[in-house]
Amino acid sequence: MTKLTHLDDQGHAHMVDVSDKAITVREARAYAEVVMLPETLQMITSGGHKKGDVLAVARIAGIQAAKRTSELIPLCHPLMLTKVSVELEPDVEKSAICITTLCRLSGQTGVEMEALTAATVAALTLYDMCKAVDKGMVITQVKVLEKKGGKSGHWIIEG
Amino acid sequence: MTKLTHLDDQGHAHMVDVSDKAITVREARAYAEVVMLPETLQMITSGGHKKGDVLAVARIAGIQAAKRTSELIPLCHPLMLTKVSVELEPDVEKSAICITTLCRLSGQTGVEMEALTAATVAALTLYDMCKAVDKGMVITQVKVLEKKGGKSGHWIIEG
Amino acid sequence: MTKLTHLDDQGHAHMVDVSDKAITVREARAYAEVVMLPETLQMITSGGHKKGDVLAVARIAGIQAAKRTSELIPLCHPLMLTKVSVELEPDVEKSAICITTLCRLSGQTGVEMEALTAATVAALTLYDMCKAVDKGMVITQVKVLEKKGGKSGHWIIEG
Amino acid sequence: MTKLTHLDDQGHAHMVDVSDKAITVREARAYAEVVMLPETLQMITSGGHKKGDVLAVARIAGIQAAKRTSELIPLCHPLMLTKVSVELEPDVEKSAICITTLCRLSGQTGVEMEALTAATVAALTLYDMCKAVDKGMVITQVKVLEKKGGKSGHWIIEG
Amino acid sequence: MTKLTHLDDQGHAHMVDVSDKAITVREARAYAEVVMLPETLQMITSGGHKKGDVLAVARIAGIQAAKRTSELIPLCHPLMLTKVSVELEPDVEKSAICITTLCRLSGQTGVEMEALTAATVAALTLYDMCKAVDKGMVITQVKVLEKKGGKSGHWIIEG
Amino acid sequence: MTKLTHLDDQGHAHMVDVSDKAITVREARAYAEVVMLPETLQMITSGGHKKGDVLAVARIAGIQAAKRTSELIPLCHPLMLTKVSVELEPDVEKSAICITTLCRLSGQTGVEMEALTAATVAALTLYDMCKAVDKGMVITQVKVLEKKGGKSGHWIIEG
Repeated sequence: MTKLTHLDDQGHAHMVDVSDKAITVREARAYAEVVMLPETLQMITSGGHKKGDVLAVARIAGIQAAKRTSELIPLCHPLMLTKVSVELEPDVEKSAICITTLCRLSGQTGVEMEALTAATVAALTLYDMCKAVDKGMVITQVKVLEKKGGKSGHWIIEG
Repeated sequence: MTKLTHLDDQGHAHMVDVSDKAITVREARAYAEVVMLPETLQMITSGGHKKGDVLAVARIAGIQAAKRTSELIPLCHPLMLTKVSVELEPDVEKSAICITTLCRLSGQTGVEMEALTAATVAALTLYDMCKAVDKGMVITQVKVLEKKGGKSGHWIIEG
Repeated sequence: MTKLTHLDDQGHAHMVDVSDKAITVREARAYAEVVMLPETLQMITSGGHKKGDVLAVARIAGIQAAKRTSELIPLCHPLMLTKVSVELEPDVEKSAICITTLCRLSGQTGVEMEALTAATVAALTLYDMCKAVDKGMVITQVKVLEKKGGKSGHWIIEG
Repeated sequence: MTKLTHLDDQGHAHMVDVSDKAITVREARAYAEVVMLPETLQMITSGGHKKGDVLAVARIAGIQAAKRTSELIPLCHPLMLTKVSVELEPDVEKSAICITTLCRLSGQTGVEMEALTAATVAALTLYDMCKAVDKGMVITQVKVLEKKGGKSGHWIIEG
Repeated sequence: MTKLTHLDDQGHAHMVDVSDKAITVREARAYAEVVMLPETLQMITSGGHKKGDVLAVARIAGIQAAKRTSELIPLCHPLMLTKVSVELEPDVEKSAICITTLCRLSGQTGVEMEALTAATVAALTLYDMCKAVDKGMVITQVKVLEKKGGKSGHWIIEG
Repeated sequence: MTKLTHLDDQGHAHMVDVSDKAITVREARAYAEVVMLPETLQMITSGGHKKGDVLAVARIAGIQAAKRTSELIPLCHPLMLTKVSVELEPDVEKSAICITTLCRLSGQTGVEMEALTAATVAALTLYDMCKAVDKGMVITQVKVLEKKGGKSGHWIIEG
């Protein structure tokens, strides 16, 4: 029967043993969006390079958070990412900033938690910088888009 | 004109000066939900106390993350929380775990980023523990519910 | 003559060079116990699942601390654990909670410091949660139980 | 009835609300000892100032760990220590290094966890530096010696 | 006689007691410069907003480092900055990027270490981003420019 | 044309992909000096072993900082150092403490940032311990001395 891998037979949390897993290239892409008032979105995107720091700060925060995933998520294995990128795109129709992240390494565990953490912290950082003008922003659609490498092979989100 | 407080006149990011703000009791509540397959939800909630660790781990991860908010969010002020709580409730109708957080302190800045960070990291921790059985989970509806104290007074989300 | 490996010829501390050590599976088990009043022990163990969080919190704290060992112990090498577990067992006769930890990885250095750190921080976390009712608790018998892998081979504590 | 303050009515862990506690000067002293082979103790203490780094490294590790207590112990409040000291004394009769720590601040919570964490991490650091010559060392007698300030007043260990 | 405040009578390091110091507004400004090849400087400054991220990343790294000063510098007190800013200015004549930082808080200790840490880490981050094209860059002139508040009053660098 | 590797085609910062780089032994040496008043230098160096802690504290701080480089420098890859050493030498003629660091590992990226971070934080720690007697100290000549391993081969500073 399928069961939760992070609990032992007595229901106690533990860090799953990956000692015997193969070292393969692993990659994951994740997503988040920050829905905001149209005026807030315009404030971020208008005005040319002077506003550039807003997206740069969120991008850096996401990259740094990916590296700290195993400190934040108690049962995550520590690992050494070989690539992290965080893209932020304004979407006027959704009145949102859409965030897509990519993490990669050669190792024994998947990196979807790292990709999700990068997306989430980039989103929280955007919230922080815009909250003085728009407290009602909502972070939504946080999910894994794609996952490659390891025993479970290639997984891609449906729909 | 309203503008983004975390950018100076040249568009450069900085940590806003709060030296002159009053020290008052400040409080914030935030929310997140993790939508999953009904089978995944049942796996978390069934089985009595042996499954208790799943929710306990997420709760602890959220509390600890609240304390580290200023390390994760680049322009957040360091602060000393005097209370943090993280509640996780299964919602069968939504097929989700609903997370509500509360942060409080007596200080010069609001604590909504801490409440949001607690909710988000608790949600990511749930994802981590259940991802082996359900990769398609989505974290959604991450938002501030309520905010008290400070110059901006009492704010509560609409609707 | 035998000497302290973490000091160079002038008595200066340094991080020992392990560049040429073989990568092998390494494992360590450590132990600690928290001696308390019988009433305190009963408070932790009685009452069914509602008290479950006490041991879960200590377990999680121990697992997380193992991952941060190289930040806490100045001359420890950073490493990537592939398994961590922390078991807590009440012992009525000793009026204590007994903690046993296990760490494992495939790497160039032993993991006994990680196992000891996990045991110690789990013990400190128990102290924290019970100190309001029992300030006189004592953490004792903190030691390595067993160590496998690497040049020094299999070591097990006597007696 | 007395109960564990870090659990709410449902047995869920939370960070206790100290918002209304008085700000007073608080102080705690803690203790730990590292029992070792007489040869190991002699190796640390003989040889004049060239061996000085061993105790200095343990002292610094203890001081730094005190500052990180709230990161290690999940339900500890973050706080700002105004003084930390860590003393290490060889005791030939016990064949041990005895560690005494002192923490102080003006704040809303006690600092015994910080004093205990300093003592414990100093002890672990000693273990780390001497483990190549003595794997059987035991850390023992980790306890709070004294606690001042706050509602519970002056507490001193018996015996 | 004047002596080093961070050592006690036996020459042992400790965290100086500031419990009795007055809480006043304290401020410090620090400086660093990164001297590089003229081509490297041009690569950073030319090309309009597309190169904007280089200076933004260094600025963010400096701000975040200021908040972590007490983790990096063993005997620094933890404190809660209320303002941090990091300015980076190209200086064609010196063929350098000049970094000026400002830290402020209301507290019991000075913030010159925080200002210096911000300047230094911003400089290291610039080095990191440009090292593929210019390994010979030198960080120089790292110093405190000015310090206000506290018992020692207003201090400003000579010359 | 040569360009900054940490920016993509749109000028956005990212963590460079090193997934395909060869694992080789890599090593770097870096340097920094802290120029101070002759009286300050004498205070550090005179007095025999009782002053030993000053240099020991700086040495430990440098070693620990090397391990945290990827947390401080946003686009640095996390890595596992296998050796770190930090040497501090008084230079009466320069009225300075001269710091030389060495980092080594077997991995996919160079370690010059780790060597620079160790040198810089050791220098800042010296500043911290002596600032009560000499606020005008200057950290200068922070640079990479030598770099070995990886595609770019052996690089040594000129002059």
